[in-house]
Amino acid sequence: MPLRIGKNTLKLTTNPSVTGFAGVGGITEGEGPLAEEFDYIFEDDKAGQESFEKAESIFHKEAVERAITKAGKSKGEINLIFAGDLLNQCTGSTFGIRNMDIPYVGVYGACSTMALALALASLSVDSGAAQNAVASTSSHFCSAERQFRLPLEYGGQRTPTAQHTATAAGACVISTHTENTPCVSAVLIGKIKDLGIKDANNMGAAMAPAAAGTVAMFLEDTKTTPEDYDLILTGDLGKVGSTLLKELMLKDYGTDISSVHNDCGLLIYDMEKQDVHSGGSGCGCSASVLNTHVLKAISSGKLNRVLFVATGALLSATSTLQGETIPSIAHAVLLTGGERE
Amino acid sequence: MPLRIGKNTLKLTTNPSVTGFAGVGGITEGEGPLAEEFDYIFEDDKAGQESFEKAESIFHKEAVERAITKAGKSKGEINLIFAGDLLNQCTGSTFGIRNMDIPYVGVYGACSTMALALALASLSVDSGAAQNAVASTSSHFCSAERQFRLPLEYGGQRTPTAQHTATAAGACVISTHTENTPCVSAVLIGKIKDLGIKDANNMGAAMAPAAAGTVAMFLEDTKTTPEDYDLILTGDLGKVGSTLLKELMLKDYGTDISSVHNDCGLLIYDMEKQDVHSGGSGCGCSASVLNTHVLKAISSGKLNRVLFVATGALLSATSTLQGETIPSIAHAVLLTGGERE
Repeated sequence: MPLRIGKNTLKLTTNPSVTGFAGVGGITEGEGPLAEEFDYIFEDDKAGQESFEKAESIFHKEAVERAITKAGKSKGEINLIFAGDLLNQCTGSTFGIRNMDIPYVGVYGACSTMALALALASLSVDSGAAQNAVASTSSHFCSAERQFRLPLEYGGQRTPTAQHTATAAGACVISTHTENTPCVSAVLIGKIKDLGIKDANNMGAAMAPAAAGTVAMFLEDTKTTPEDYDLILTGDLGKVGSTLLKELMLKDYGTDISSVHNDCGLLIYDMEKQDVHSGGSGCGCSASVLNTHVLKAISSGKLNRVLFVATGALLSATSTLQGETIPSIAHAVLLTGGERE
Repeated sequence: MPLRIGKNTLKLTTNPSVTGFAGVGGITEGEGPLAEEFDYIFEDDKAGQESFEKAESIFHKEAVERAITKAGKSKGEINLIFAGDLLNQCTGSTFGIRNMDIPYVGVYGACSTMALALALASLSVDSGAAQNAVASTSSHFCSAERQFRLPLEYGGQRTPTAQHTATAAGACVISTHTENTPCVSAVLIGKIKDLGIKDANNMGAAMAPAAAGTVAMFLEDTKTTPEDYDLILTGDLGKVGSTLLKELMLKDYGTDISSVHNDCGLLIYDMEKQDVHSGGSGCGCSASVLNTHVLKAISSGKLNRVLFVATGALLSATSTLQGETIPSIAHAVLLTGGERE
């Protein structure tokens, strides 16, 4: 049963386990430094489909099916799936999982979706509502570009602060505590922050205050310091947002996280060789990095305590056209090595 | 703590209470039969804003603030808010609640959102993750029409099977058990059903199989029959979908629900006098009907056991243009009179 500690942190008293996890990517992700760690790289970003949106659903489905298989479960053993994505009305998820016959909770957190879905799946297992729950999300560069920015055919130039939406999906299975698996020990559901940023090509800046608020709140609630973590992993602030986060943490909260901080948007691509501007973004970026590289490192003992903080910019193309600012959010999940910790 | 009974139903063993509830509507809703029961009717569907989208956020905010006030709580006492809506990237919710400083779980269930948010808020209270949690949603005829169908200025004619998106919002506060309040006794998270319906102007038909599946599963899991309920309330199948639901229940499950069934889409408008085709729809329809008329009737003892089943059509304008079918879902929440039952 979850136990509220401090103001907003929920400690999971049964230590739910991550029994299976998988990440899949597209062509650009397959050229990045984590390619070898991905479960599958699609050689065709359209995955044989007629549209980018349909392709995203195939990516999503692939990640979920691989995670369930790797957990040694059947779909019939999954009590709940928490899924969502960036596409209008979350069709990346719903069309991807529609034939799985699993009770479905649609979630929306923009690029924070992996942390949100993972937090809710873990809470559901910790409370006994589910024995096995899936958390999953996806994004696709081409479906996101034409939905949020410009049609690809237009060939619009991107600003240096812009991030590159990952063509990727990630999923994991959370189960009642199982020995020798990574565990979810605590979660924090974030609050919306809106500091008045309006530039939809600089979402790292819009999201950094939300990330800082969530990290600071988690540290305060759990009476811990950055040194208590092997990694504080944001997803996805990119280059601009990551620098801002570290500055904000120091300035507003007097906390230096620079020695343990990294960002999924900086890990997924080669920031020098790949043309991805400020780094990766999109729900699938942090989802695929978490469910490949990071959970593998926790499983193998390279990492023991990882605070995963995914951030989301809660804008729409319409809100931007209507001159609105960008409300942002960040949710945190504490992953640990389980017994080994 | 939630207790899994049967295949998919979760019994809430602490009987979380609905300590506050509120519904607000626009002009057309103010001309309907439930107008007197609404907490507030906006005389201007734009609520003084520059756009329909911004107006929807004002409606959403109004419902949430009224529900919290009626619960006798302050915003600082609310541990979690579960909210979502039909607008792209759920901006109706996020822009409505962005200044409330409450941890926010974004949910997406199309028109099933009220039941989904209510189920999750109730689970969070039942598990101890929250002492007070808000569930809220909204919709707006004008923002939905131009997003999903045609610009209003086009004056397109609607088919008889089309439903009228309600300009309305509803919210409730779920709290640890409190005497003499309506309670949430059980919830069921639905599965996606897709029977191949493609007509986005006949969503009642697309959603009826999901509603039937959820009602049948709930009855089976809880070993109850329609006679055990004062009301099985769907939201929002409208005229076409409601007829289909009753037929499907009889044909596929051998269960006659006709004596206890009603639909929020048929209750919110005067089906003879108001020009709403097959009835109301949109997240705000079932949300406002539940959080005014229905919860008032449970509070006063007119109703004791209400199975609230909200349905959602998980399509997008893009999926329809790409020739996709309409996956649908229905979530169920059992509301009871508490001690009085």
